[in-house]
Amino acid sequence: MPTEHTVTSFEEDLKKLDRLIAEMGGMAEALLADAVDTMLKRDAEGALEVKERDKDIDALEREIDEHAIRLLALRQPVADDLRVVIVALKTAAIIERIGDYAKNIAKRTQVLSVCAEMGAGKSIKRLAALVQEMIRDVLDAYVTRDAERADEVRLRDKEVDDLHTSLFRELLTYMMEDAHKITPCTHLMFIAKNIERIGDHATNIAENVLFLVHGEMPEDARPKRDESVYVADPAVED
Amino acid sequence: MPTEHTVTSFEEDLKKLDRLIAEMGGMAEALLADAVDTMLKRDAEGALEVKERDKDIDALEREIDEHAIRLLALRQPVADDLRVVIVALKTAAIIERIGDYAKNIAKRTQVLSVCAEMGAGKSIKRLAALVQEMIRDVLDAYVTRDAERADEVRLRDKEVDDLHTSLFRELLTYMMEDAHKITPCTHLMFIAKNIERIGDHATNIAENVLFLVHGEMPEDARPKRDESVYVADPAVED
Repeated sequence: MPTEHTVTSFEEDLKKLDRLIAEMGGMAEALLADAVDTMLKRDAEGALEVKERDKDIDALEREIDEHAIRLLALRQPVADDLRVVIVALKTAAIIERIGDYAKNIAKRTQVLSVCAEMGAGKSIKRLAALVQEMIRDVLDAYVTRDAERADEVRLRDKEVDDLHTSLFRELLTYMMEDAHKITPCTHLMFIAKNIERIGDHATNIAENVLFLVHGEMPEDARPKRDESVYVADPAVED
Repeated sequence: MPTEHTVTSFEEDLKKLDRLIAEMGGMAEALLADAVDTMLKRDAEGALEVKERDKDIDALEREIDEHAIRLLALRQPVADDLRVVIVALKTAAIIERIGDYAKNIAKRTQVLSVCAEMGAGKSIKRLAALVQEMIRDVLDAYVTRDAERADEVRLRDKEVDDLHTSLFRELLTYMMEDAHKITPCTHLMFIAKNIERIGDHATNIAENVLFLVHGEMPEDARPKRDESVYVADPAVED
């Protein structure tokens, strides 16, 4: 039965896309965890290894792209199937950026040496934990096509923004108290910003899941990004 | 001759994608120019207007996405034509991010008030001018499928990185000299980083143009991002 065989194989092709996305997302999540871990330990060697691992994520994006393009060319999917392929392409691009942000954290770790005594470590750890959970949950939502769960991930971005804002404020205080902390704290600010951006990207994946399930992007898609930092300037609030 | 009519119309559909990308890219380039302009003037009202205009770019991305998806579904393109559609989708996503970075600059302008006397303005202006030129040239290369020109844009990213590094250093110095400058300079650092990232994105578009022309991504695609800032820590260089 060649027809049935073709159908099954097409479904296999689509499922493979999901599998690759889940794998790529898992790698990015682990990379973020390890980037933050090595940063908190000021482990420059570990950071180097994290940096290298980002290449595997990039390679997986290329694999997903190639698989998706082959699928489009050979199977010429329409309607729901076409959506699955487009969303996979978009999601892979988002996860690639998550990997970049994790790599960026690792690079900054390599130049961080002071600041070890600062309390900011705890806040960064908490921020990263929140965002890792968002990635994990949004990937689960992706694979199971669970719109409700995706929507719930989007809501959590507010918590990330608030925590990021208070961390930004905390770092500014350290910098003003001691000029020696300016350079390391600047790096910690960018690290915190990277983590906050990863949260934004988890939100973007959630929006893609909603598109996958409902066939359209949510009304308030990309509601806002990078808001938190703007109120973090004490001068503004006065 | 219905066949010929169909062919022409398909070509029209593909050309429309190019036109939309050129339009969207032009809007992003203008947004960056105006974001930097209003920032240098500390023009909070102008910054608000820049922020609002980013929505038009987002809307255009949705239009491109929809047009591309319709094209995939109805025309089921293969080979070169398929590549044109995929690259348009990817490029639209990149331009959307360029718009976001410009918007981010505008948002920071709204909280910037001090620092007006600092010399950093000139460097930021130069950095932005370099990056705007990259966007302009890469869009031209996109529409004319000019691989050589795209490659030349990629090379210019090094200049942007170097300028960004020296600007970062300059800002660190101001912060260490005067604690009152810490907050505004922090925002200027993020603004400079945003402009540098836009340069990275212009490079990414250039890589997509190479993919469009040659059928594969350049070997050294995504060579590095965000390197400049890591050497910008004076502590590292000692």
